[in-house]
Amino acid sequence: MGKNRLEAFSDGVLAIIITIMVLEMKVPHGEDLATLTPLVPVFLSYVLSFVYIGIYWNNHHHMLHATDRVSGAILWANLHLLFWLSLFPFVTGWMGENHFAPLPVALYGAVLLLASLAYWLLQRTIVADQGDGSLLARAIGNDAKGKLSPLLYASAIPLAFVSTGLAQVLYVGVALMWLVPDRRIERVLGRGE
Amino acid sequence: MGKNRLEAFSDGVLAIIITIMVLEMKVPHGEDLATLTPLVPVFLSYVLSFVYIGIYWNNHHHMLHATDRVSGAILWANLHLLFWLSLFPFVTGWMGENHFAPLPVALYGAVLLLASLAYWLLQRTIVADQGDGSLLARAIGNDAKGKLSPLLYASAIPLAFVSTGLAQVLYVGVALMWLVPDRRIERVLGRGE
Amino acid sequence: MGKNRLEAFSDGVLAIIITIMVLEMKVPHGEDLATLTPLVPVFLSYVLSFVYIGIYWNNHHHMLHATDRVSGAILWANLHLLFWLSLFPFVTGWMGENHFAPLPVALYGAVLLLASLAYWLLQRTIVADQGDGSLLARAIGNDAKGKLSPLLYASAIPLAFVSTGLAQVLYVGVALMWLVPDRRIERVLGRGE
Amino acid sequence: MGKNRLEAFSDGVLAIIITIMVLEMKVPHGEDLATLTPLVPVFLSYVLSFVYIGIYWNNHHHMLHATDRVSGAILWANLHLLFWLSLFPFVTGWMGENHFAPLPVALYGAVLLLASLAYWLLQRTIVADQGDGSLLARAIGNDAKGKLSPLLYASAIPLAFVSTGLAQVLYVGVALMWLVPDRRIERVLGRGE
Repeated sequence: MGKNRLEAFSDGVLAIIITIMVLEMKVPHGEDLATLTPLVPVFLSYVLSFVYIGIYWNNHHHMLHATDRVSGAILWANLHLLFWLSLFPFVTGWMGENHFAPLPVALYGAVLLLASLAYWLLQRTIVADQGDGSLLARAIGNDAKGKLSPLLYASAIPLAFVSTGLAQVLYVGVALMWLVPDRRIERVLGRGE
Repeated sequence: MGKNRLEAFSDGVLAIIITIMVLEMKVPHGEDLATLTPLVPVFLSYVLSFVYIGIYWNNHHHMLHATDRVSGAILWANLHLLFWLSLFPFVTGWMGENHFAPLPVALYGAVLLLASLAYWLLQRTIVADQGDGSLLARAIGNDAKGKLSPLLYASAIPLAFVSTGLAQVLYVGVALMWLVPDRRIERVLGRGE
Repeated sequence: MGKNRLEAFSDGVLAIIITIMVLEMKVPHGEDLATLTPLVPVFLSYVLSFVYIGIYWNNHHHMLHATDRVSGAILWANLHLLFWLSLFPFVTGWMGENHFAPLPVALYGAVLLLASLAYWLLQRTIVADQGDGSLLARAIGNDAKGKLSPLLYASAIPLAFVSTGLAQVLYVGVALMWLVPDRRIERVLGRGE
Repeated sequence: MGKNRLEAFSDGVLAIIITIMVLEMKVPHGEDLATLTPLVPVFLSYVLSFVYIGIYWNNHHHMLHATDRVSGAILWANLHLLFWLSLFPFVTGWMGENHFAPLPVALYGAVLLLASLAYWLLQRTIVADQGDGSLLARAIGNDAKGKLSPLLYASAIPLAFVSTGLAQVLYVGVALMWLVPDRRIERVLGRGE
């Protein structure tokens, strides 16, 4: 069972998610600067979510590159990840429209948390299918970033009700941590070839 | 005539359907929990439809994997299936927004029924093209799940006017029945290789 | 210069057009049958446009199958075709929402006309690039259907102001004429192999 | 690390951007000619943006054709370009709905400017990765059009507040300049083969 169609479908879904998020930034009625200012928080949350979907696409790309075959369990673990990512346009729009109010910021963090757990589950499913000696298992190693991220998201959710600024700092911080491309897989792949 | 472009087009349509359904979950105006509660049924119907589109993508993937070539009849039988699936965002949104009222629940069942018949027709068209001794024909076998599903959807439609809860139990039940990946094709393919 | 990316991009655009048309069928507020009846013309125009986009995808698929290489002129002739097809969601929605009023029906015909001319132009561009002895040139032959369709659309536009019913009969008739898959190319390809 | 998935993802995003822009052209309520006239500027800005996205797709296609491998830096430079292009539906809709008022025209120019700088950055990143003697580096040459375009966009932004007509002349002019396909790369590629 080839992985090409899984990649193509995931690429399609991620490309649509990243693009329809911009539809939540409604074209305002009015032509002066004052009509644009309420859109600034919507724009900022769009930027953050664009970067997050980019990170997921990037890491997904690397992970499947190190995957040989696709089982039924992997297909469903992948759809499960896409499900949580598909909620990004909703939570991004809600957080932006309410100018980073506590509950929307917390819900955004909850979707980040569930997506990161779904990513971890997909990774586990692939490794379980391919064995601990597989390229992917060696490439992941101890997976410090993958374990730290859900903890930081989980901390940000209650924190949002104390200080939305601190919660956002955590969201931006985790994104920056991941922006560094996953050199582990690149390195092991380079060695394997 | 290769099947790659048929797969690519179907993947594109399914990826878009599964993603634009989330646009029916309109971002609410307001930042407290009370603004989210009316969205709970919309979210639940989104989850159900996401799972159904995932099942169709999964089974479509397996079916085409066991298909050698694509005729004009197969192209149109495939478009016919995509047509009914393209109505999912509409019926999902209508059912969710009306909190599972009888008529929307029945219409949802009608689209499920027509999609399942379209899937069956596509399967028949491929088998007719490739012969009863083909990989796909052997993989399908007696096709118990494929015959049972339309019957259950057809029962759910009138049932929706008696008890919407029972109709929904049927929709969820059929989805669970299909969530088990189609091991028949995997098994026969494994044997054939 | 390969044709794969041209096919992939065209498939993507056609898949999105065919799917977002359904968004023009707005989910109604209300749960009884009376809220659905105004949607019947919207649904019917959706069906017609779905079939038309399906026909274009099908014929495009066949035409590119018989194409060897892609030049800059072919790229732009293809984008020109996609431009007119991208207006389908708009004219379909306008025609459906106004219950097949004369002007929307005429505008729908105008977009059909311009798309068919763009298709003809793309076909000419490919043949000009590949020579009159090419597979595609022989497959097209005298292209009776390709020449008749624009004439019928052009007749339907003024006719819409006399009788919208007759104009719609023409639109449906041309679609039926094309639903028969283009056996000419299949035949010539079969012979060529 | 192959470039196929990068192309597929970029194609997906560009196909969606080019198609959802048409959703900003809202179906009007009313069936006479008077309801269409306010849409004329929306249509014209849609045409301009369609041509621009087509140009980007075309040049992106050529550039990646001359690219051998994809690094993490190239992935992110590509996502950065897609980000600015993803704002096209918003600025196109705003400019069209306000009938080419000064501020929307200037903002449209700003997004054109940022997209052109992102394209230049992506090109630099690829050349830096592949070396000055690479096919792409030779194909680009002195890159006169690539250097002139941002200057013209940057001039158009302040000009929009003096004369929106002149700014639009610049936008159309740069598009026409690029409509000529990038024969440099075609030529060098032809020589290289």
